[in-house]
Amino acid sequence: MADEEPKPAPPPAQAPAEGGEEGAAGPSKKAAKKAEAKAKKEAEKARREAERKAAQGASGQQTGPAEDLAKDNYGKETHETVYSPEAEEINLKSLGDEHVGKLVILRAWLQNARMQGAKMAFVELREEGNWAIQGVVAASPEGTPVSRPMVKWVGAINPESFVVVEATVQKPLEPVKSCRVANYELHIKKCFVHAAAPTMLGMTLAAANRTIANFSDEEPPVEKAVENLTIASTPAPTSGEPVGIPAATMLTHLDNIVMHKRAPVQQAIADIRAEVKDLFRSYLKSHGFKEFEPPCLISAASEGGANVFCLPYFDKQAFLAQSPQFYKQMEIAGGRKRVFSIGPVFRAENSNTPRHMTEFTGLDMEMEIRKDYKEVLHMLEGVLLHIFRGIKERCAYEVELIRSVYPSEEFLLPEPGKEVRLTFAEGQKLLREEGPEEYRNVSDDEDMSTPQEKALGALVRKKFNSDFYVLDKFPEGARPFYAKVDPTNPKLTNAYDFFMRGQEILSGGQRINDPEELEARIRQKGVDPASPGIKEYVDVFKQAGVPAHGGGGIGLDRVVAWYLNLPSVHLAAFYPRTPKRLVP
Amino acid sequence: MADEEPKPAPPPAQAPAEGGEEGAAGPSKKAAKKAEAKAKKEAEKARREAERKAAQGASGQQTGPAEDLAKDNYGKETHETVYSPEAEEINLKSLGDEHVGKLVILRAWLQNARMQGAKMAFVELREEGNWAIQGVVAASPEGTPVSRPMVKWVGAINPESFVVVEATVQKPLEPVKSCRVANYELHIKKCFVHAAAPTMLGMTLAAANRTIANFSDEEPPVEKAVENLTIASTPAPTSGEPVGIPAATMLTHLDNIVMHKRAPVQQAIADIRAEVKDLFRSYLKSHGFKEFEPPCLISAASEGGANVFCLPYFDKQAFLAQSPQFYKQMEIAGGRKRVFSIGPVFRAENSNTPRHMTEFTGLDMEMEIRKDYKEVLHMLEGVLLHIFRGIKERCAYEVELIRSVYPSEEFLLPEPGKEVRLTFAEGQKLLREEGPEEYRNVSDDEDMSTPQEKALGALVRKKFNSDFYVLDKFPEGARPFYAKVDPTNPKLTNAYDFFMRGQEILSGGQRINDPEELEARIRQKGVDPASPGIKEYVDVFKQAGVPAHGGGGIGLDRVVAWYLNLPSVHLAAFYPRTPKRLVP
Repeated sequence: MADEEPKPAPPPAQAPAEGGEEGAAGPSKKAAKKAEAKAKKEAEKARREAERKAAQGASGQQTGPAEDLAKDNYGKETHETVYSPEAEEINLKSLGDEHVGKLVILRAWLQNARMQGAKMAFVELREEGNWAIQGVVAASPEGTPVSRPMVKWVGAINPESFVVVEATVQKPLEPVKSCRVANYELHIKKCFVHAAAPTMLGMTLAAANRTIANFSDEEPPVEKAVENLTIASTPAPTSGEPVGIPAATMLTHLDNIVMHKRAPVQQAIADIRAEVKDLFRSYLKSHGFKEFEPPCLISAASEGGANVFCLPYFDKQAFLAQSPQFYKQMEIAGGRKRVFSIGPVFRAENSNTPRHMTEFTGLDMEMEIRKDYKEVLHMLEGVLLHIFRGIKERCAYEVELIRSVYPSEEFLLPEPGKEVRLTFAEGQKLLREEGPEEYRNVSDDEDMSTPQEKALGALVRKKFNSDFYVLDKFPEGARPFYAKVDPTNPKLTNAYDFFMRGQEILSGGQRINDPEELEARIRQKGVDPASPGIKEYVDVFKQAGVPAHGGGGIGLDRVVAWYLNLPSVHLAAFYPRTPKRLVP
Repeated sequence: MADEEPKPAPPPAQAPAEGGEEGAAGPSKKAAKKAEAKAKKEAEKARREAERKAAQGASGQQTGPAEDLAKDNYGKETHETVYSPEAEEINLKSLGDEHVGKLVILRAWLQNARMQGAKMAFVELREEGNWAIQGVVAASPEGTPVSRPMVKWVGAINPESFVVVEATVQKPLEPVKSCRVANYELHIKKCFVHAAAPTMLGMTLAAANRTIANFSDEEPPVEKAVENLTIASTPAPTSGEPVGIPAATMLTHLDNIVMHKRAPVQQAIADIRAEVKDLFRSYLKSHGFKEFEPPCLISAASEGGANVFCLPYFDKQAFLAQSPQFYKQMEIAGGRKRVFSIGPVFRAENSNTPRHMTEFTGLDMEMEIRKDYKEVLHMLEGVLLHIFRGIKERCAYEVELIRSVYPSEEFLLPEPGKEVRLTFAEGQKLLREEGPEEYRNVSDDEDMSTPQEKALGALVRKKFNSDFYVLDKFPEGARPFYAKVDPTNPKLTNAYDFFMRGQEILSGGQRINDPEELEARIRQKGVDPASPGIKEYVDVFKQAGVPAHGGGGIGLDRVVAWYLNLPSVHLAAFYPRTPKRLVP
């Protein structure tokens, strides 16, 4: 079909879905808080105005209902709504030159509508993620008629309504900067509202796509807002961004979960999260690992009972698994050489920080050791490097989009063959010798604190140019009873942690596989090997010969959050669970 | 390296790891019960005898310790154990002609050892799953010396010890029938026990690989054994199987989880389970679906609170999700076109049947509907057919192995284009007209019972030659409030169930996406739309326009169990959870 419409000039770039680079000077959180409320009011005002205008348009124009030649081409979609049989359903992702001039159907969220005079309206139609295209509806009696009332009606559709448009694909005079699909636009012939958004959204898409101002689970009184914040400041919008759209709090986001999720920045984070899982899975499968599923419901709190959720289970008690480790080891004992699992784990820890959640996703693996536990360490390092390189290759667009909202420095990777592996003692030495004053006396025998870890991360970045490194050979006192002690030095274990940007994302090591050695070690730790939960664990190694093995558990949410340097791990989760928050 | 050993004849086929075709005439369960106890005794006796002989061999031979030229070539593996640097570590799966004559190292479970005279012993070495190879150790002074004490020592290793052998790969005179690797054998030069199994296993591999006699969670008194059984009889071993190894109960299996898992039949089931997940995931991803993760911990029991686990959650209460449906719909509302999830779901149902578990894995999907909910139905049918065909193609060996223990008829699939889709009314008509006497009066308005479903499954198999079919258009009364009523007939819903061998494996349909329609429907069902759990659900559709959508949830455990016609879904799970059972 030939297009008979004039090619309209693109509207001024005003992309609620795309944040610009964030400036350095942000308003105070108090101001942000106030501005948020103000913006809500303004949005409502604007919406009412648009409605009023639209109503005027429908009645005030000289084309009465009887004369509206386009009356069957717009309105609320019903069972009688008819689309042209020759129109092809399209996906924006696969739109190409072969579609130009063709009649197509697009089902999408209308994220923006704007009148341009009385005879033309521009809309932005978003399909998924950040895939949006500009649509133009212009009054014209030719071909499928488009009337002025139709133009006004389309221009007044509530943003975030789900619409179906029938349109011809055209190339715009110049690329449409505000939409990801920049080289095509839709000349709309029919437009129906399939599901209407409310007149007043709880949170606009533009607000949903901004930096979140505050991750606290409690709405702080305005006066206390500054002190209660755990997170970095909210940068001011740059010139490319709509003015007057301040950052909202995480609570506002979660209360408006639908709009939160529609924000391109959240969709990009979700895409990267899925990619990390795929990269983890495919790498391990290609290295001979088999997937299994550990249970969530377990009969005993194996690690002493701290921070474990407990529930009535018929006439007994059950606990929610804090880690699949026992079950990973059972798989190895049960005749598997290499296993992995991806699933939820639970911690009843009353920690209200941006690093903690009560439910999160563990990426876990366990494998037989042939000669040395370093085989496991290298496998874990390998899978993480595969993930980091994979994100960079496959998710460049998403990373860029997220950085436009949450600025971050490139995640530095070691060059192949130059992986950063320090012993715990080497790490402590670095801290003592080159770290901040307060770490001059850190000991080789005690575990590190979170601030120590961050300080070491900064030193490693400076010295080795990498945001990813391994700390090996943790002191015996810092590891649990099942950790294998270094046969050459009883003060150390064959256990390690991995770090991203100075924050721990993995803990693992070689486990004791000999039941007698295990029992001796448990006693040495002051625990009775016959106590509940412990006995069942030890018994597994008595059932039949179990080879040397080791593994590790990676926190998926942390990998995603720290790679992107997000201000909170809660942003990386689909439905973050915190001590104070179980909804949505 | 040229091999200098004589090629020994293969030992008589005696494969504990491979059951033959099961005979028709089984012993009574009471007899099986008794035989189980008897076999345990006999196994212990045999073991003691072997130990005694081994001890005699080590001391009675005329090669004293000082003269044992092979003394460095066997024993318990220590840090001083040395293997030949030129020996290559192998995997049985990738063993080929290029290895013949070469020196290799294999790490494996010794599943069987047997003396052949005083100078030769045969062992079976199992790597993973059913991958086993025959090893031969024969006394010889040539090359790396093998002494008689070494032969006897190897011949007396406790089965299911984990060993490391150094050996040359040879082709046997004729294929080794008892091992999956039939065309190669290992001529052992060194053999070390890496992790010893106990002298007396709680359950032998042969017993672990037999049909399970009883799936009850309570050990029935021997007198009541027959009545308490819920499962089909235990077939007698056929001539190809070791005599005197009766079937054990599921309780015995779970108490001996390590041996249960080592059984090739269980490893094959686990492999198929993993394959089903992969097939589900890859099919949906290739059709534009995105993976997401619903939470397990939720704030309200959305479906009325029946059968839901409840737990203290800090100062509140939490529930364990019975289904990810609400969250799947939230993803669609949140701007995704198609989503899927794979994860645990929980039911606090006190049902002690072979079809129920309290924790199981859901394969869930949800998608936007463009024109008709049949799009969803066809997508679900498509992914299941992809899974069934995929199992047949990729897991033929595993299916065969499982059938040798749990015999089953081929799972019949419809030919492409001849998928069996009946309306609920058509199904009921078939039952009335061609089903058993007691179903002459079944109604089109009431849901089916489990026996009715099975009867219909049998009729469908006979009539359409398929074990897989869809029942569509369930009556309004049989579906929950969120089910979309058929716009052309208010007595029906756009909802369906899928069946395998007459048993439900999937439930799904179109959901109501309009908040007003949803509230009206909730009221019609006698529920207050403002009640907790319901209100949060309805509010999602008020936040912004949500397109028409539908989906379905598949029980992974059931798909695996019914495809293979296993006697209990518990066999398909890694760690089955029942009202009475939380361990291991």
